[in-house]
Amino acid sequence: MIYFNCDYTEGCHPDILKRLTETNMEQTIGYGMDEHCRHAADLIQKACDAPDADVHFLVGGTQTNATVIDAALKPYQGILCAETGHINVHETGAVEACGHKCITFPTNDGKIEAKQIRDYAKEHFRNGGNEHMAQPKMVYISTPTELGTIYQKKELEDIYQVCREYGMYLFVDGARMGYGLVCKQNDLTLADIAANSDVFYIGGTKVGALFGEAVVITNPELKPDFRYNIKQHGGMLAKGRLLGIQFETLFENDLYFEIAKNAIRQAERITECLTALQVPFTVTPQTNQLFVVLSDEVCDRLSEKYVLEYQEKFDETHSVMRICTSWATRQEDVSQFMEDLKEVL
Amino acid sequence: MIYFNCDYTEGCHPDILKRLTETNMEQTIGYGMDEHCRHAADLIQKACDAPDADVHFLVGGTQTNATVIDAALKPYQGILCAETGHINVHETGAVEACGHKCITFPTNDGKIEAKQIRDYAKEHFRNGGNEHMAQPKMVYISTPTELGTIYQKKELEDIYQVCREYGMYLFVDGARMGYGLVCKQNDLTLADIAANSDVFYIGGTKVGALFGEAVVITNPELKPDFRYNIKQHGGMLAKGRLLGIQFETLFENDLYFEIAKNAIRQAERITECLTALQVPFTVTPQTNQLFVVLSDEVCDRLSEKYVLEYQEKFDETHSVMRICTSWATRQEDVSQFMEDLKEVL
Amino acid sequence: MIYFNCDYTEGCHPDILKRLTETNMEQTIGYGMDEHCRHAADLIQKACDAPDADVHFLVGGTQTNATVIDAALKPYQGILCAETGHINVHETGAVEACGHKCITFPTNDGKIEAKQIRDYAKEHFRNGGNEHMAQPKMVYISTPTELGTIYQKKELEDIYQVCREYGMYLFVDGARMGYGLVCKQNDLTLADIAANSDVFYIGGTKVGALFGEAVVITNPELKPDFRYNIKQHGGMLAKGRLLGIQFETLFENDLYFEIAKNAIRQAERITECLTALQVPFTVTPQTNQLFVVLSDEVCDRLSEKYVLEYQEKFDETHSVMRICTSWATRQEDVSQFMEDLKEVL
Amino acid sequence: MIYFNCDYTEGCHPDILKRLTETNMEQTIGYGMDEHCRHAADLIQKACDAPDADVHFLVGGTQTNATVIDAALKPYQGILCAETGHINVHETGAVEACGHKCITFPTNDGKIEAKQIRDYAKEHFRNGGNEHMAQPKMVYISTPTELGTIYQKKELEDIYQVCREYGMYLFVDGARMGYGLVCKQNDLTLADIAANSDVFYIGGTKVGALFGEAVVITNPELKPDFRYNIKQHGGMLAKGRLLGIQFETLFENDLYFEIAKNAIRQAERITECLTALQVPFTVTPQTNQLFVVLSDEVCDRLSEKYVLEYQEKFDETHSVMRICTSWATRQEDVSQFMEDLKEVL
Repeated sequence: MIYFNCDYTEGCHPDILKRLTETNMEQTIGYGMDEHCRHAADLIQKACDAPDADVHFLVGGTQTNATVIDAALKPYQGILCAETGHINVHETGAVEACGHKCITFPTNDGKIEAKQIRDYAKEHFRNGGNEHMAQPKMVYISTPTELGTIYQKKELEDIYQVCREYGMYLFVDGARMGYGLVCKQNDLTLADIAANSDVFYIGGTKVGALFGEAVVITNPELKPDFRYNIKQHGGMLAKGRLLGIQFETLFENDLYFEIAKNAIRQAERITECLTALQVPFTVTPQTNQLFVVLSDEVCDRLSEKYVLEYQEKFDETHSVMRICTSWATRQEDVSQFMEDLKEVL
Repeated sequence: MIYFNCDYTEGCHPDILKRLTETNMEQTIGYGMDEHCRHAADLIQKACDAPDADVHFLVGGTQTNATVIDAALKPYQGILCAETGHINVHETGAVEACGHKCITFPTNDGKIEAKQIRDYAKEHFRNGGNEHMAQPKMVYISTPTELGTIYQKKELEDIYQVCREYGMYLFVDGARMGYGLVCKQNDLTLADIAANSDVFYIGGTKVGALFGEAVVITNPELKPDFRYNIKQHGGMLAKGRLLGIQFETLFENDLYFEIAKNAIRQAERITECLTALQVPFTVTPQTNQLFVVLSDEVCDRLSEKYVLEYQEKFDETHSVMRICTSWATRQEDVSQFMEDLKEVL
Repeated sequence: MIYFNCDYTEGCHPDILKRLTETNMEQTIGYGMDEHCRHAADLIQKACDAPDADVHFLVGGTQTNATVIDAALKPYQGILCAETGHINVHETGAVEACGHKCITFPTNDGKIEAKQIRDYAKEHFRNGGNEHMAQPKMVYISTPTELGTIYQKKELEDIYQVCREYGMYLFVDGARMGYGLVCKQNDLTLADIAANSDVFYIGGTKVGALFGEAVVITNPELKPDFRYNIKQHGGMLAKGRLLGIQFETLFENDLYFEIAKNAIRQAERITECLTALQVPFTVTPQTNQLFVVLSDEVCDRLSEKYVLEYQEKFDETHSVMRICTSWATRQEDVSQFMEDLKEVL
Repeated sequence: MIYFNCDYTEGCHPDILKRLTETNMEQTIGYGMDEHCRHAADLIQKACDAPDADVHFLVGGTQTNATVIDAALKPYQGILCAETGHINVHETGAVEACGHKCITFPTNDGKIEAKQIRDYAKEHFRNGGNEHMAQPKMVYISTPTELGTIYQKKELEDIYQVCREYGMYLFVDGARMGYGLVCKQNDLTLADIAANSDVFYIGGTKVGALFGEAVVITNPELKPDFRYNIKQHGGMLAKGRLLGIQFETLFENDLYFEIAKNAIRQAERITECLTALQVPFTVTPQTNQLFVVLSDEVCDRLSEKYVLEYQEKFDETHSVMRICTSWATRQEDVSQFMEDLKEVL
């Protein structure tokens, strides 16, 4: 079986396991206060051109989102996001479990626009605020989005501008940030994201690490006591160095970006093939996630050799399926898949 | 100034104040364990033809909704409702503050349909459940809705049927229940509601009481330890008898229904007048809340003598306004208002 | 049956019911934005000599405590209190339900000391903080305490001093404040309390109102958006004027203090009687709550005519009982009780 | 520097890294549904003689405790524990953040007794329950405790007996379970623990794994939907196989127990040495954690070569220090430490 269902089917980039093995019997202090974490944080500050940023390492995405949002908001404040946002759909209500409402905007491509945010905030604060409604205080975007699309620099700047107008924080979920930053249409750098948000995270789990997400806090209001939040949310790894070592490896010699390119290359190959075969996409492909409409018969035949991810019914006889590549996707697997696609379709 | 903005501008029906005064120096035990509460509960059980129902008295609507929902759901479970539902819009995220997600359906008239609920539940439980999403476990409807519309008996039965199919609870918010039960199109009784839901509440605050909501629990699963929930939510009034006395008064001799009729009568008079004047309604009027489109100029002129409630902008020069009557609305105030409407429009 | 079990067995002072009746058909806007609330707030600001304080009216004690504490604390912060504190013992975990830990100190008389607080804070902040523990950020005291004792001015000042040293808020629960301020040993005024705390509340429920607590916020950090907190906690009464009218009545002509004196007078009479009868007190009486050790036989005999409140077993044959007076306690009932005590003991 | 401050200073047992490396490029499905997790669960069921138990793998202890407790309790229910319990002291209020009160008992050695639990439950349920207080519903014990002591079989059985009498769950925190099960005084097996509790966990983080805790649920009431709880708490690792592989390795050929013995052996050597040197212990040593009183001068001298963990001030010139061994502690480091102790003391 070959898995194209998601970007976390393998372990990690071999360099990481090598470093873990080399350092295994080192003794360090716990909870992320060790030298590896410090070094990894330095590398990330540099990569973001944000020498004053606080960098923290957490284990997974849901945990990271809940911790950041809970740390930033007061009990009566809510977070604005796309209706397709990961926090709104696929985290089992973890944000609500911390007490906060997700206030959602409709979207076709997983992205939201500055105008949607401005209109909402303007109405809420029309008379200084409306205490009968959750107060909008943070905006959540993901780039790449859950639908594989990316924000352009101008779009990000516009959103951040609205946030500042209305005293709201901007939080960027970068679970797949590596893939976004090396794709063709991208015009953003880590430094741009650091300069145009209050807090964001760089995903490791889906881009070459065993696990781990690096939170970068640039807004001084969000920095104090963040470690208390991590600990309370169960996100403070006893052997924090495991995270430090992974991000050290990924951010030395730009390994993070190098390995991300493979996902994009393989996704492009599949996209070309599917386009030639006139398979319709529900969202225009930009990164490593492809959303296509396939007949249930085709799905059945492909499922003998490949695992794709079911998204939803398209109509009576078709489904929307996700095809996903990653840092680990093998050139030869994609070649085989393309041949089989041609045969089946 | 004459207030048509909401249905809680006056104190309470004079009979209630009389009874409070008569009983004022009685000594009773606290927290709703007194004779008045017991008597009021009996009266309500009878009115609902539900001799085994548990009846509890709480102070206000937001508190009641949060208490009922929090008592019924496990941390990872969510509540389905209309996007216009009071819990979703106007309770400052109180349901989320208890940890639960509001999962919303689009609506034009404040109501949701059995089909919407079934489709959602069916998809969630497709493979036995999906632990990456909040689990749908309760359905919330209000009747009358926040837009003044009511559920017909058949609609309620259909929704309850879906709930039972998928092991979900049905919770009916009856903040304005009195007005719904005496309006023209109504074909429901309290007994119908008791028979077709798991828990509901009968609103006092908006229908003649100083304050107070009577929660009726018919599903035995939801009964145990409910008083712990009330207490924890700050809803257990030390002098619980104040609630007992009010509901005793409202449910002896059908006072609750009698006084509700006035709101409907006055709303009908205004509706006729507005219809004659060709003022457009955004929702077809059924109970005591009327939603109309008025030009901002008309609004300004009316605001010299009347308080209506702004809902939202309709277009550049018009707004949607709510006109609301109640048990206390005076015949002569409505007559005056109608005359002024004719003049201004 | 005569009730001495608590101080909320009757309705309210007759003047309040009179005012509610007089104003009953007035139309006002809702949610505490009306003239009565504004006037009541003015009267309280004056009584506290705190013209800049924010004053809010809530319905009951548990709700008030949860709202104030939840508004003040970040998710990882805890509240220091006596192990006998109402929030720790008798609110069904309402503070924890908002996510906050009660960090408790041992006490014999319901009071805590500045030294206990300082020692704890000093240890926590030894190295700038300890993210593995809840961070102490607020101190909760009640005066009178749950055991009927009061804080002296010097004690309050010392506690407030520690709070300021460690950046912690001081919150004073005044559910029975009236009784404390008119008792013999008292050397505090409302102005002293306002000057030596960040937020406190003046209890109405137990001192002559039907219900209601007036929150006074003096620390500007705690003022913004407090109404959002009230609403989310289900504490925003639709007919907020009911609270305004009650506190107007209580704070015009010092009614609040006048009626509190009766409770103290009657408690003193009972105390003298019990002392003469050599009944042991578990706490030295100061206000309207008396805690005595009675044999279970005596309890049984008294229970034919009187309701006292069981606290806990003292030994195999004795129990600790609470005897409580109030603004409404009748001189003749106390006389009868004293005679019966003499006979039974 | 040699670290004796805790039992998580190294990475993991080399066999684990070997297996992670061997399996690194395998493709598996995510979230703990893979073959490795299934196999590890089988091995644990067998080791516990609990073929019907549900086994789940989480990342760390605080997360595991919060998830289990939150899954088991209703909002108004609390958890009984020793005042020294990890959940009460060192998890930054994570249990309270889920809404639940820790109800604590005093202890000298980290253990609580059946009698303490029975007395508390008996008083709470005296009249069928007391809705003004958090309802006791779960008992939390850790073995080994935070003070290094262990429960004997009879003690565990007695506690579980009380739990069943009062309808409470027993939850055993086994963060260091391996060390407890191989120490001299131990008379418990994993099967005994499974038979005398409702849910427990077997700690990996402190006993040879990189990270990971295996939750074993034997009570059918606690099994449904547990994966929703894990996901909501941010504990569902995308690459769940990392946990499966680690526990496979630890539970094949009893590796878990074998490596735990080293910690006990080394702790015994240090204990003998300290006893000979007449260093006082604050708790009688049983497992791998030793709590001793050392003068601050001795601490200073030792700190040149060794890291011990400060616990608290003992008196003006002495401190309580923790000395901790682990699966990874080197024979020669202990020998050196003992020599230095003899010299310094």
